[in-house]
Amino acid sequence: MEYNSKEIGGGGVWGPKAWAFLSAVRRQSPLVQCITNFVSMDLMANTLLSAGASPAMLHSIEEIPDFTPHAHALCINVGTISPSWLPAMKAAAELSSKLGKPWVLDPVACGASSFRLNACLELVALKPIVIRGNGSEIVALAKASVEPAKGVDSIHGSMDAVEAAKSLAQESGAIVAVSGAVDIVTDGKRVLGASNGVAMMQSITATGCSVTALITAFVAVDKIHALEASVAALSIFGVAGEMGMRLAKGPASLRMHLIDSLYGLDEAAVLSHVNITTLS
Amino acid sequence: MEYNSKEIGGGGVWGPKAWAFLSAVRRQSPLVQCITNFVSMDLMANTLLSAGASPAMLHSIEEIPDFTPHAHALCINVGTISPSWLPAMKAAAELSSKLGKPWVLDPVACGASSFRLNACLELVALKPIVIRGNGSEIVALAKASVEPAKGVDSIHGSMDAVEAAKSLAQESGAIVAVSGAVDIVTDGKRVLGASNGVAMMQSITATGCSVTALITAFVAVDKIHALEASVAALSIFGVAGEMGMRLAKGPASLRMHLIDSLYGLDEAAVLSHVNITTLS
Amino acid sequence: MEYNSKEIGGGGVWGPKAWAFLSAVRRQSPLVQCITNFVSMDLMANTLLSAGASPAMLHSIEEIPDFTPHAHALCINVGTISPSWLPAMKAAAELSSKLGKPWVLDPVACGASSFRLNACLELVALKPIVIRGNGSEIVALAKASVEPAKGVDSIHGSMDAVEAAKSLAQESGAIVAVSGAVDIVTDGKRVLGASNGVAMMQSITATGCSVTALITAFVAVDKIHALEASVAALSIFGVAGEMGMRLAKGPASLRMHLIDSLYGLDEAAVLSHVNITTLS
Repeated sequence: MEYNSKEIGGGGVWGPKAWAFLSAVRRQSPLVQCITNFVSMDLMANTLLSAGASPAMLHSIEEIPDFTPHAHALCINVGTISPSWLPAMKAAAELSSKLGKPWVLDPVACGASSFRLNACLELVALKPIVIRGNGSEIVALAKASVEPAKGVDSIHGSMDAVEAAKSLAQESGAIVAVSGAVDIVTDGKRVLGASNGVAMMQSITATGCSVTALITAFVAVDKIHALEASVAALSIFGVAGEMGMRLAKGPASLRMHLIDSLYGLDEAAVLSHVNITTLS
Repeated sequence: MEYNSKEIGGGGVWGPKAWAFLSAVRRQSPLVQCITNFVSMDLMANTLLSAGASPAMLHSIEEIPDFTPHAHALCINVGTISPSWLPAMKAAAELSSKLGKPWVLDPVACGASSFRLNACLELVALKPIVIRGNGSEIVALAKASVEPAKGVDSIHGSMDAVEAAKSLAQESGAIVAVSGAVDIVTDGKRVLGASNGVAMMQSITATGCSVTALITAFVAVDKIHALEASVAALSIFGVAGEMGMRLAKGPASLRMHLIDSLYGLDEAAVLSHVNITTLS
Repeated sequence: MEYNSKEIGGGGVWGPKAWAFLSAVRRQSPLVQCITNFVSMDLMANTLLSAGASPAMLHSIEEIPDFTPHAHALCINVGTISPSWLPAMKAAAELSSKLGKPWVLDPVACGASSFRLNACLELVALKPIVIRGNGSEIVALAKASVEPAKGVDSIHGSMDAVEAAKSLAQESGAIVAVSGAVDIVTDGKRVLGASNGVAMMQSITATGCSVTALITAFVAVDKIHALEASVAALSIFGVAGEMGMRLAKGPASLRMHLIDSLYGLDEAAVLSHVNITTLS
């Protein structure tokens, strides 16, 4: 949603919270392991670096026992998944959960094939702290996650993204985030909305993947408040997009200015731009 | 070729045609599946997005039966091919052809090894609608595609790219496009030339891969006119490069401005810059 | 290190040498094969292109016998290594050494796992002409490379990067380069330092990988002087960063301007900015 000058200061209680998360990431520089898709590795790594985190793209199952215990959080993204990558994703997720480290799932295009949907369901069962997708991804995953006993019919075909997110959060125990014109985050009961970002961000590949990585960095520094961390990351990424948009002439320059803005975000910009509200 | 101000309006009949293709892509937003190399995934996806198409980078053979039928066209690029990727490329190509969906081949560096050349020959046999490469790629593929009965000697060592393209088009049944200072497109009889683009585009990795993706988006909206779609895509991509060059200070800023320009291209710019001619 | 105006002309004897290396790369356009990680492929290829070299990202073991003999040099980077990639790395390294072609190793995060460390040790045994890493990578590799007879204790836990680099150079026979605020290059006896570059380059993913690729291009045109080629490449890349920094607003625009600057570097800029000194 384009930044609206009337909402300056609209950050309210959320502006300081979002700033506290970003500051903690910059201060602690959490090590974030990413097992992700080939398309987004570059932008995800640069997003994490510009936020102050330390990215590590390691995906080989041989390395997980040695490396994953040193990471502060894990981001798994199935964008270009193939059967040879799934075991490492599962091993890293399982080890993270066992060690009490937060991990975040991005179920990219989970409805594209039964292989992909099943892979995502197996990953959801390994207890991600946050699941972030777009509306159709979350709806597909929510429908597939419903216990057979309830029957598929218990979910209306018209289930909207908010209902789907709440249902998936309840089934999985994860915080569920849905990117859209307004980003939605829910723990199954509370629903928060972040109204930052600009429409042109959808014309840049890997922005969704990158905001999932940013959520991972935010939960790395405060896994107890994953709901708040998730909505803050979505808002902060959107604010960086809004500030980048002032200089952008199209999607490629927006991508560059977004990363520059994320790197340079100061407290005043965060406090005046963060637009998070409680929806229910 | 640097834009020549004397050629304003030189688009002639081709300016409106090229604009019609671009407009159709923006309106229909075709879903373009790419099975491509690791280097170019990011720029290809952003090229497709900035043209208004919808990219999907899925390469796992397990997903092809579910996903490929939903795509409007398929782009296969062998840039970083390995034996484990070839079966999925063949399966996707075969299914696309069976379903009457157009698919486009980019035989990157096909002369680099016998493995790669054989892989390309297997793919050519699966009936791409368009093959796009640079001169040496098309010459290598044309020589290798000639039926043994004719003998290798039937192709002169000095065969130039136009001859090679015509020969390959006749052998394969595909439209063949050759990128160069002047881009050439042929169906084996007619030869069209597009004189757009700037030399510095050769100093940016993946521009060739990206224009092949753009061709795929153009044939996705009109597979009946693949010759025209191909030359229009080559010209439009070159026009975006020409417009980007006005702001560029080197190859990295050219890359950014090219994508921005492709996103923002309007009818007047297309009509005045497209420079397509019938060569024979 | 931020460019200091007092050091204009500080290039001394090294300015002309560095310029000679860059000029030779531009003139000869060496073909540089890269077997590298997924994150850096794009920036590495663009770095090589902007320096005037010709990159080729081929990693399949099937292609190495046909292709590697045509490359002028080889760059191996283990950033996203998995067991399926190691055999091709070893085959290409072995063939390069056998053919007398220089190859360069980037032991990314070699301390992250025993699998990775062992892979790097196997590669070091195949006689790279240069090894480039950051301080912790070189220290980890140096410690692991010491002959068991000497015992691990012979290396102090506090061994600094210069000691580690000298030790690794002596053990391996390779030139060893350590990136840092001051880049260090040694053949085990002489130690040279390059004080170019800006701190923000550390906030861009793949800059380390890219300077290793640039070193590879420099040794491709003069493998006899690999020590000098390495320090010149590190300095030139840093100079491009310094010039890019003048226009940058953050890490993403710095990345763009760095590549543009590398492409456009002229003799005057090189002579006035190169800051190489003999440390011992």
